[in-house]
Amino acid sequence: MIKILQVGMGPLGQKTVKFALERGFKIVAACDPAPDKVGRDVGEVCGLKKIGVRIEPTVDLALKKLAKNKKPEIAVLTTVSSLVKLVPQVEAIAKKKLSIVSTCEELVYPWRTQPAVSKKLDKICKKYKIALLGTGVNPGFLMDYLPTVFTAVSQKVDGIRISRIQDASVRRIPFQQKIGAGLTTAEFRLKEKEGTLRHVGLAESLDLLANRMGWKLTKKTETLNPVIAQKDIASGYKPIPAGIACGVEQVAKGYVGEREVITLYFRAAVGEEKSFDTIVVEGEPRINTTIDGGVNGDIATCAITLNAIDSVLKSAPGLRTMSDVMPVTYFNSKR
Amino acid sequence: MIKILQVGMGPLGQKTVKFALERGFKIVAACDPAPDKVGRDVGEVCGLKKIGVRIEPTVDLALKKLAKNKKPEIAVLTTVSSLVKLVPQVEAIAKKKLSIVSTCEELVYPWRTQPAVSKKLDKICKKYKIALLGTGVNPGFLMDYLPTVFTAVSQKVDGIRISRIQDASVRRIPFQQKIGAGLTTAEFRLKEKEGTLRHVGLAESLDLLANRMGWKLTKKTETLNPVIAQKDIASGYKPIPAGIACGVEQVAKGYVGEREVITLYFRAAVGEEKSFDTIVVEGEPRINTTIDGGVNGDIATCAITLNAIDSVLKSAPGLRTMSDVMPVTYFNSKR
Repeated sequence: MIKILQVGMGPLGQKTVKFALERGFKIVAACDPAPDKVGRDVGEVCGLKKIGVRIEPTVDLALKKLAKNKKPEIAVLTTVSSLVKLVPQVEAIAKKKLSIVSTCEELVYPWRTQPAVSKKLDKICKKYKIALLGTGVNPGFLMDYLPTVFTAVSQKVDGIRISRIQDASVRRIPFQQKIGAGLTTAEFRLKEKEGTLRHVGLAESLDLLANRMGWKLTKKTETLNPVIAQKDIASGYKPIPAGIACGVEQVAKGYVGEREVITLYFRAAVGEEKSFDTIVVEGEPRINTTIDGGVNGDIATCAITLNAIDSVLKSAPGLRTMSDVMPVTYFNSKR
Repeated sequence: MIKILQVGMGPLGQKTVKFALERGFKIVAACDPAPDKVGRDVGEVCGLKKIGVRIEPTVDLALKKLAKNKKPEIAVLTTVSSLVKLVPQVEAIAKKKLSIVSTCEELVYPWRTQPAVSKKLDKICKKYKIALLGTGVNPGFLMDYLPTVFTAVSQKVDGIRISRIQDASVRRIPFQQKIGAGLTTAEFRLKEKEGTLRHVGLAESLDLLANRMGWKLTKKTETLNPVIAQKDIASGYKPIPAGIACGVEQVAKGYVGEREVITLYFRAAVGEEKSFDTIVVEGEPRINTTIDGGVNGDIATCAITLNAIDSVLKSAPGLRTMSDVMPVTYFNSKR
């Protein structure tokens, strides 16, 4: 059974721990510097029964005094979205010779957007002979890795178009608030400026796709706009009158010259008629596939993080992407 | 640009050669013992202009006298469906230190169905330090590898159900004949006995899926039946009256104890209302995805064979499967 060091005990870390325990992984150490977490039991913080592992403020302290047969094999890193902020965290773990799988969105394919930081991370990994992978449902799967898998049967690829449409009515209240449901356009734009509205990862998905297809993108665009309710909506956490924002729409495009080779369309709104994910590969053959109801993001991000462990442990040292580790599939800790 | 030895110049080999040339791969050598092929130019046999490569009867002769800068890096093997018949062919290529990607259906996941032959092949590969991969659209992708990729986001997998439904009306006449369209039930059963009707690969797909999910199948079943026209059908290569076979239906099931964990449903018939491929992963989250129109099998098998080359060249020696080589994606020979 695989033994995990959990770094980051926020909501995502807690859910990943729950999933890991459900599947028989062992959480042997954990850390988070938050004062309301330090010193508490991992299980307790996750709303489960105690598992006898104390949350320490640092990686060093979390690994100190561990019996030899309790040493973790992998670190699961669920802390920040920003690559720059991730560097010291990676370094601290790398020094302990532990490979890392992380939910950091910018880590999914950082080579184009942040080449210097990417090289630095790669160097750290190679120095300590560990592998580092960023993954998640999106970025990490739906708008990047999964479409590349479909192109396995392509003789020719002219373009890739992906839409992820989600009805937020059924999602938890903080998610509905996060996407701006119930805000006036002015309030929406204010929140956008604060940076809390934005889905992080479209640029990284563009780059991963382009890299695999052998496209050198000459232009990338990204827009973010409110989805405005066309009529009164009653299905969400509060009534939304017509004319008010009910969600967010983000569109990213990648061009080679004048040709729009990649289109990523993301829309999450309260009152959306149908949730679905669609991937279209234009070319030979044309592939048009739709995931009915979409992939549940809450479950998927934590699950893919755990499922990636096997591939990361088998990987060569360095900063890896989903496309250059062994294919990630459901992975039972007992396999 | 990658240089290929093409082994087998039948219809599939010819199409693969065409695709390879379209994409800038180099065919530097080719062999096929068929008297109507030996001595002819590869391009000519494929209905293209000559490429200056003579078809030789054996691998040895095809590689003899090749200038050093013309030596192939990979062998593409498109000959037989049977694993046993493949062994001497693999051995002849392995001795030349060439890794192999093949369309042999039984090679896709032979470890359960033919363990002794699998071990033998693996041993040959390791002896000569080459990698050997079986691939194709089905088996090789649609009913095995692709579904495992969807489980990357699974916290729990209870079952996998796949349907591949094809309207054969739009396919070439030999395909319509192959699936038994226009036969009486008695004629159909006769042809079934001859073994020419059967889609090869369902057992291999079952085993690949089970292996990745960590399921030890206790029972496997496979049935083959005619699809009987319910009314007169005029869309095919010839009119098919009601009561006559218009195609074939194959169902394979994998069980763990009493639980049917895998269902593979394959149906190809003239007059089928709609073509599509559906993959359902039962579990958390539930995933239900449909490829509208299905994946065009003629294009896909040749394309995935070429796309797999990059992953095979990067692979460790041995008998590999699609799940244990680097993710296969569209791969431009110039990358």
